[in-house]
Order: sequence, then structure tokens, then C-alpha cells
Amino acid sequence: MIGLLAGLLTTVSLVPQVMKIWKSRSAKDVSLKMFAAFSVGVALWLAYGVLQQELPMILWNGVSLVLASAILAMKLRFK
Amino acid sequence: MIGLLAGLLTTVSLVPQVMKIWKSRSAKDVSLKMFAAFSVGVALWLAYGVLQQELPMILWNGVSLVLASAILAMKLRFK
Repeated sequence: MIGLLAGLLTTVSLVPQVMKIWKSRSAKDVSLKMFAAFSVGVALWLAYGVLQQELPMILWNGVSLVLASAILAMKLRFK
Repeated sequence: MIGLLAGLLTTVSLVPQVMKIWKSRSAKDVSLKMFAAFSVGVALWLAYGVLQQELPMILWNGVSLVLASAILAMKLRFK
């Protein structure tokens, strides 16, 4: 239960950052290094979830990977 | 092993964001909602790790909570 809520919050937290950059077309203060390392880390969590066959881990990290990659792509696009 | 590397990357990824805001004294493009929700989520992961007595989870999420809180505090301070 705590794990589910924790996963929901850390994953969903990426949504307002995606929307903020998308609307402002600016990502100057967002760290490229942060979202590059974060995306690779989340991809590894996803791989770990697949190996452990832990469905909640696969789902949360799958969604997080999409969102973190979107932030990374916009950082590269909008600077 | 994958879990350790994944935890290291997602935690350490916060460091360049902390340093970027600290140096530039600007956090305009950083989402307040993201780091507020993310900090609460990481605090819940920490509580989950304590309940499960999982030391790696406690360590990574403890460090992440300090870093995410620092980003949140600077976002409130520098805007």
C-alpha cells in the first residue's frame, strides 16, 4: 500500500515537469545530466522489475521512463 | 547488482540538478509540483524500506530525500 502510493507519487511527479517545459518551451534551469542519469537509472529499475517479475515495478518504471525520456528530449530540443 | 546500479543512478542524478540551481541561483524552469510530489514519494519509499527492513532502499531513498528536499527548498528560495 505504501509502496503503491510511493510509486504513484514519484512517477506522477514527472507530469508537471513535462507540462511546464512543454508550455514554456524553456528548460534552461533543468539539468541535462540529471535527466540523462535518471532515465538510465529508471531503465535499469525496469529491467530489475522484469527480472524479478514484479508487475508494479514494471508498470511504474515503464511510465516513469516514458516521462523522463520526454523531459530529456525537450531539454535537448528547447535548451 | 542491477538494483544497486539503478538506485545509484537515480539518486546521484539529483546532484547535478542541485548544483545547477545553486550556481545559477535560478530555478524558473524547474517544476515546484514535480519536486514537492517527488519528495513526498521518496519519503514514502524510505518508510517502505524501513518497514521491509531493506537497507539499500533505506540508504538510497534517505540520500534522495535530502537531495530532492534541497532542490525543493532552492526552488522556493530562488524561484
